[in-house]
Amino acid sequence: MAGYVQDVIMLLGDSLTQGATVPGGYAQQLTEFYNRKLDVLVRGFSGYNTSWIIPVFEKVFAKASERQNVPKIQLLTIWFGANDAALPGEQQHVPLPKYKQNLSNLIHTVRDPGSQWYSPETRIILITPPPVNTYQWVEFLRNCDPPKDYSDRQFDLTKQYAEAAKEVGEAEKVPVVDAWTLLWEACGQDEHNLPKFLTDGLHLNAEAYKIVFDALMKIISEEYPEIHHDRLDMVYPSWDIITDENYLDLLKDSSSRN
Amino acid sequence: MAGYVQDVIMLLGDSLTQGATVPGGYAQQLTEFYNRKLDVLVRGFSGYNTSWIIPVFEKVFAKASERQNVPKIQLLTIWFGANDAALPGEQQHVPLPKYKQNLSNLIHTVRDPGSQWYSPETRIILITPPPVNTYQWVEFLRNCDPPKDYSDRQFDLTKQYAEAAKEVGEAEKVPVVDAWTLLWEACGQDEHNLPKFLTDGLHLNAEAYKIVFDALMKIISEEYPEIHHDRLDMVYPSWDIITDENYLDLLKDSSSRN
Repeated sequence: MAGYVQDVIMLLGDSLTQGATVPGGYAQQLTEFYNRKLDVLVRGFSGYNTSWIIPVFEKVFAKASERQNVPKIQLLTIWFGANDAALPGEQQHVPLPKYKQNLSNLIHTVRDPGSQWYSPETRIILITPPPVNTYQWVEFLRNCDPPKDYSDRQFDLTKQYAEAAKEVGEAEKVPVVDAWTLLWEACGQDEHNLPKFLTDGLHLNAEAYKIVFDALMKIISEEYPEIHHDRLDMVYPSWDIITDENYLDLLKDSSSRN
Repeated sequence: MAGYVQDVIMLLGDSLTQGATVPGGYAQQLTEFYNRKLDVLVRGFSGYNTSWIIPVFEKVFAKASERQNVPKIQLLTIWFGANDAALPGEQQHVPLPKYKQNLSNLIHTVRDPGSQWYSPETRIILITPPPVNTYQWVEFLRNCDPPKDYSDRQFDLTKQYAEAAKEVGEAEKVPVVDAWTLLWEACGQDEHNLPKFLTDGLHLNAEAYKIVFDALMKIISEEYPEIHHDRLDMVYPSWDIITDENYLDLLKDSSSRN
């Protein structure tokens, strides 16, 4: 079994997070930059919304009573909304007020001293859903099995969920990566330019993930500078100070565990 | 803290493993393919040899007594030799017999029922060090600070370590990814073609990592087919069977934990 030697960044989300393990995805980039400092655990569940994730989160985030030998989560990113914003009547749809309440619930699960999952050392960052390109998306759905001949997402509705996520961030004092606005600005506020960033109208390509990753690192620099990768020591020392004489003493207790 | 919901692949090694989190690296590819099935923990320590890794391994691999709430390691890859094969007199050098003994020790630490780290469910795969290109490497060392004006690696010596790793695999009945031979064949057995696969004479580029990854997946298919990613279920179910009516029952206990 894996011993506890370094702490963790946990990425909670839907397909935008599950898909972020590809080259250039924000999970891949975090893993590369936090190498030997923090492990990155991808908890992205394609198609899930904020209602369905709650019982899952209560397992992937350990209860206080289960934390023996378990790494601390130094940073938790929460990225939902792309599925919650499916049109009313669709299986994945979560009404806007409920979406906001669910996001708040996830935050309170970690932050409330009375919660079984209370974790005061866990920093949180919210990410807004990206803009949807219904022209691309309807084309994608038409090729699904069974095909759908209408879009189950709308540009303006997803925008409302992005704004709602920002409102939750403000109310809960949680910093927000505003992926919606960043990508909208990057495409010149023109839906027809969104294919530059979206593979199918809903999901991000590597270029879009880079925008999200850069914004995430900027927020870490500004809000949580103590866990910027440049500020963290490697858990085990650099090889050039190790010798056959000192290695046992030097390496026996070099983990970040405490 | 991170709850135990899915098991782990642990990649133990030197800089060839540490560097494998880049796009196309074998850590990145495993993370992508085992998404929602097994977490990939990178335990790559640049510059380390098989002697120095032993006290580290005894921490990153949990003792039996520390395994409450800790994920099982379903697969452990061990990739050393590139530093052990530094020339005699160099800080990183490990004599060939000691290198073989250290590799065997790592395997026995996991496999011996009397070991504190005994883990009968952990499958092991060894990887041989890749061929070194001294022409490139001496150029790299010349540009280091302080510069070195000679190569601290030799082609033939690294080859001996690769052969020794295969001998250990055979003796211990552990399957081996023979990265040395695969890359040597891929460059037409001509050292002058190695820059196609090596960034600096010692480290792999994405194309070389792909060869290692493909060979690793082939061994998993042949020796440990039960943990091929195609054979593993996702830890939590696909979204399209989830509804607002069934999600609590469906998701409450879907982890692979047992």
